[in-house]
Amino acid sequence: MTLNYIDNKDLYPSRKGKPPKIYDRIDPVVYSNDSESPISSQLIKKYKKNGYLKIDNFFSPEEITSYQKELEYLLKADYVVDKEKIIREPNSHEIRSIFQIHQISKVYKKLSKHKDLLSLVKFLLNDNIYIFQSRLNFKPGFRGKEFYWHSDFETWHVEDGMPSMRAVSISIPLTTNTYENGPLMFIPGSHKKFISCQGFTPINHFRRSLKQQNFGVPDDLHLSELINQNGIESMICEPGCLILFDCNTIHGSNSNISSFSRSNIFIVYNSIKNKVSQPYSGQSPRPEYICTRKKIEPII
Amino acid sequence: MTLNYIDNKDLYPSRKGKPPKIYDRIDPVVYSNDSESPISSQLIKKYKKNGYLKIDNFFSPEEITSYQKELEYLLKADYVVDKEKIIREPNSHEIRSIFQIHQISKVYKKLSKHKDLLSLVKFLLNDNIYIFQSRLNFKPGFRGKEFYWHSDFETWHVEDGMPSMRAVSISIPLTTNTYENGPLMFIPGSHKKFISCQGFTPINHFRRSLKQQNFGVPDDLHLSELINQNGIESMICEPGCLILFDCNTIHGSNSNISSFSRSNIFIVYNSIKNKVSQPYSGQSPRPEYICTRKKIEPII
Repeated sequence: MTLNYIDNKDLYPSRKGKPPKIYDRIDPVVYSNDSESPISSQLIKKYKKNGYLKIDNFFSPEEITSYQKELEYLLKADYVVDKEKIIREPNSHEIRSIFQIHQISKVYKKLSKHKDLLSLVKFLLNDNIYIFQSRLNFKPGFRGKEFYWHSDFETWHVEDGMPSMRAVSISIPLTTNTYENGPLMFIPGSHKKFISCQGFTPINHFRRSLKQQNFGVPDDLHLSELINQNGIESMICEPGCLILFDCNTIHGSNSNISSFSRSNIFIVYNSIKNKVSQPYSGQSPRPEYICTRKKIEPII
Repeated sequence: MTLNYIDNKDLYPSRKGKPPKIYDRIDPVVYSNDSESPISSQLIKKYKKNGYLKIDNFFSPEEITSYQKELEYLLKADYVVDKEKIIREPNSHEIRSIFQIHQISKVYKKLSKHKDLLSLVKFLLNDNIYIFQSRLNFKPGFRGKEFYWHSDFETWHVEDGMPSMRAVSISIPLTTNTYENGPLMFIPGSHKKFISCQGFTPINHFRRSLKQQNFGVPDDLHLSELINQNGIESMICEPGCLILFDCNTIHGSNSNISSFSRSNIFIVYNSIKNKVSQPYSGQSPRPEYICTRKKIEPII
């Protein structure tokens, strides 16, 4: 297996002021041999093909209840959280995200080391891993706004300096995700391509982009191509389910005018060999609570 | 059957600066006897219960093709339409709605007099009817924004002076409506209640409300009550289908980040006995292209 991320070479140039372009992915999707998988080979095949996987009833009802209670606690007692780590909706005071939850909360710290979860993530990345980012996403009823289509990797590469595609995200729904409350949507197979985005990165872009993303978003033409080829899949699920997805899978969600909030835990595991260097945008690094850079604690 | 709209009495007060309140509907939902129905009594029962009805394959493929072609023509040749009648998205130049399409287009004029359609509408309203409003709604892919929950009647009552609930809307999808492209959503049974909204009506409110509605929207508490009791239903359908709904049924739609646009024709038929008087807001009437007031042409 080739390691592509030596010498800080930019293997996935984006936002360099050039027209948008689509590249093939250079990196593997699964870094271990299939024979070592802790889940069935059918599921791994599906993950490789689509770039994401939904596993129902992964967590026990007791585990989910403890995660839900912790969410309620954090939302009500938001004064216990460093203000900077709380992102609010673009047009209201309502909470959209809380960052670094594995540091803030003992319950979520324990979750981040969940045995079955780690065994799966380690299989996918085949390396020692650390938590690159963690957050609680809260899409309130009535006024929850959309998250536009994006590849997380594009942002982490350009704005944080993540060299290669060797990171996995997990999303754990804490409320029922229906078609009506703006569920997570994926473009299957989009992880095999990299859309180089147009434009540049505004300074301190993250302060706005966490509310509403305007840069680092794929262009209409390439997005249409991917959607026409592969369609869109909505992640309709009940609490207890685990959603795993590759760092480069294009995802987004529509607004939520239903009365039902859509909350989920989001943790990103990165390979130790893939830790961030200088941002490829050439700008200053984003804060530690968004991108673990200094305090890397490997999860063995 | 009592006629409630004599003497311009305000039977459904709203936006009078008082706290929000929920009332029972005073008016009938279906004004004819069931025995006169041109469709099955099961369907009429459903309409009475839910406040809306979806009838698949109501229009022939040829009819739908002609409506779609006319849409393409109007979108491309928007210079043929009086600028005032074109409403654009809040943050872009893209078209959101074109008003008075039954006047602008021969194809849509013919559609507005479609025999089977009129027989159904006349049955529901049991009176001579006229077109109160018509429009083309175009929710573009990627950037189509949500339409927040509302009762059309609340707006037509307060801002136009429509006395009673004796109007029916029809929506004709011109593109496939999926869960991903922001389909029309209804709260079943909501037509039996009237939510009196808080606040007042800003002057010339319509100029903004047609882009994004901020006044005349139901409050969270009463909306939650209705949704908890009745749920939400998304209108997933193919072109050819007809959606009929009572003027007071609460509806809305989420944003559309999919690549697929969601377009539909929207026509409102009103009973001649229910024609508008002075707006109950006490303000000036809205323009004729939004609310037919002067040029009432009964469809016999």
